[in-house]
Amino acid sequence: MGRLTGGDPSLLRRINSAVVLHALRAAAPSSPPTLTDLVKATGLSRPTVEGVVEGLIDSGLVAEASAEEGVARRQGRPARRFRFRAEAGHLLGVEIGPHRVAALLSDLSGRVTGSAAAEVTETASADERLERLRATVADLLRRADVPRGALRAVGVASPGIVEADGTVRLGTALPEWTGLPLGERLRRSFRCPVLVENDANAAAVAEHWKGAARGVDDVVFVLAGLSPGAGSLIGGRLHRGFGGAAGEIGALHLLGREATPEEVLSPTDEPLHPLDEAQVVRVFALAREGDERARAAVDRYLRRLVHDVAALVLALDPELVVVGGWAAGIGGVLDPLRTELARYCLRPPRVALSLLGDSAVATGALRLALDHVEGELFAVERPVTAR
Amino acid sequence: MGRLTGGDPSLLRRINSAVVLHALRAAAPSSPPTLTDLVKATGLSRPTVEGVVEGLIDSGLVAEASAEEGVARRQGRPARRFRFRAEAGHLLGVEIGPHRVAALLSDLSGRVTGSAAAEVTETASADERLERLRATVADLLRRADVPRGALRAVGVASPGIVEADGTVRLGTALPEWTGLPLGERLRRSFRCPVLVENDANAAAVAEHWKGAARGVDDVVFVLAGLSPGAGSLIGGRLHRGFGGAAGEIGALHLLGREATPEEVLSPTDEPLHPLDEAQVVRVFALAREGDERARAAVDRYLRRLVHDVAALVLALDPELVVVGGWAAGIGGVLDPLRTELARYCLRPPRVALSLLGDSAVATGALRLALDHVEGELFAVERPVTAR
Repeated sequence: MGRLTGGDPSLLRRINSAVVLHALRAAAPSSPPTLTDLVKATGLSRPTVEGVVEGLIDSGLVAEASAEEGVARRQGRPARRFRFRAEAGHLLGVEIGPHRVAALLSDLSGRVTGSAAAEVTETASADERLERLRATVADLLRRADVPRGALRAVGVASPGIVEADGTVRLGTALPEWTGLPLGERLRRSFRCPVLVENDANAAAVAEHWKGAARGVDDVVFVLAGLSPGAGSLIGGRLHRGFGGAAGEIGALHLLGREATPEEVLSPTDEPLHPLDEAQVVRVFALAREGDERARAAVDRYLRRLVHDVAALVLALDPELVVVGGWAAGIGGVLDPLRTELARYCLRPPRVALSLLGDSAVATGALRLALDHVEGELFAVERPVTAR
Repeated sequence: MGRLTGGDPSLLRRINSAVVLHALRAAAPSSPPTLTDLVKATGLSRPTVEGVVEGLIDSGLVAEASAEEGVARRQGRPARRFRFRAEAGHLLGVEIGPHRVAALLSDLSGRVTGSAAAEVTETASADERLERLRATVADLLRRADVPRGALRAVGVASPGIVEADGTVRLGTALPEWTGLPLGERLRRSFRCPVLVENDANAAAVAEHWKGAARGVDDVVFVLAGLSPGAGSLIGGRLHRGFGGAAGEIGALHLLGREATPEEVLSPTDEPLHPLDEAQVVRVFALAREGDERARAAVDRYLRRLVHDVAALVLALDPELVVVGGWAAGIGGVLDPLRTELARYCLRPPRVALSLLGDSAVATGALRLALDHVEGELFAVERPVTAR
């Protein structure tokens, strides 16, 4: 490891602190490191490590590991050992969807320690929806015995194009969503950093973190609902697009003045009304029972989905496509996707189902909150050695 | 500037050398820097700068600037001044297309010092096409009085999906192109690094360097030909995709088993045969003259182009779409694109015509060669201070 010579002393302290925290987090829980271990792992001097560790203990982020915490006793005076206190703070990952709100609670390591969800009607106003979210979160925190002040960051994912400041630029899936200053509204409730993200983007992050895209850095996640949306990772990083609208492929059919989703999914001459998931599940069920017109409707739906996914694949050339969302749960989506992409894409990607299902969106929101906190606690900036 | 303490001394020399070259290149030609200027600009010690400059003079990359080169004489003994010798090496940017091969020659600063192009028939074999390229380049080097050995890097752009090693994975636009080890073949002629890239990707790089996308880092360049291809920059960097196939949107219509380009562009009941640019120019001309069926054919062509571009825009959400290639030259492409994208994209991008026209692809290839050389000569690696 290199060393810093000179420069801002408070920056130096922060960097050293981050380096030590890194080493503490990387250690196996069964053998918490001693000061000597930390000196070795970080390349810092013993007095520096001692000072940093004392500071981290004062801030609550580090504790002395006791023998009960898996430390094998050796001969002689045992050296003090230290561990990262993942329980020193908490994070929330929140999904706000058309039919439900859901929240995941975790510690500072990202380990999920609680969850809650509540239904909400599709026609609920923005106020009603946010109130339902607040009640759900309050209940979750109460049950987990976590004070609101222990929250270090909250990630929120919802349909729509989200600006960098957390305002919903455009969101037709939820009533009163376009223009809603979602980040600002939620910051009032939480008094900690609130990160707002598009739902498909969050789900892409989630599948990369602990789902079907683990270890794969070029991924398109397709949130297959009535109209598909997508989130993409390029080189392991979320690709939001210039205005946060990347992946909104569901708008493509508008262009050809083609049939509306209501017409596409209708098993009769009349458009489906209302077009909601219950109706669509009924059409898929009819198709499975052999109803000819329902089958044709499902075929039309799948053809359009394949077309939209192919457009994403041709534009981005990902290694893997993960299909999630409501339509992925109905089944029968994967095979036509695989067959058609293999036939028509110049370099067909692998295609997999979401492993996280219903929890993908909230899990991604949680990961965004964790990214934020890790950025604050553990980020080690690289000093610039040349302009 | 920070300083390096310890570490690999040859790496240190290379970094210091790059830092000094950087400073020399950044200086205004009218006032070449003195050693004192370089010490100030780099933060290195005077003996280090002296040693580095002597080494760079030996290697031919730096020269003492004479009074004739714009140095204002002052009172007293004039200090030695130094300049980067852009003429110390040369670069080639090469386009290999269906109808022509073209090459641009530049110095180490990327300033174009010569160009050449030659026609080639669409049906030419790979050998014939490469032989035509060799003859064109030989002629260009002879006219410019540049020995082949002075070439530091060659960038090559051609249609098709190109692997990292310069092999054409798939290229249906040119005969015998699929599977061709293009990089390997050309490395035999040039004996310097040869970088091979897809033509639309190269054109995107070119428009960003000195065309319609200057200063814009999120760009989709559409190479509008018989079937459109595209190249994208994300955050100022070329997005090749996992397998180098990103942007090959022309394949999208295959999926719907829709009309072939031959049918789309035909003003009769018969598919256009052969489908070549001359034929298509004729159809566009007929349309302008008022021929109803030719007009309908042009409309079909534009509708498909708009659809393909919309798919790219929805997937990527760029700030700017630049339209180039053969169809951009015919005219009448920009207005329908702007209107339709504004109507149907959730966050419509700006749309502009290529400023580089015919030379976009070769210019991009040249930029790739320049990037390679700059990476070798000027890249300053940042030492890692923490794992």
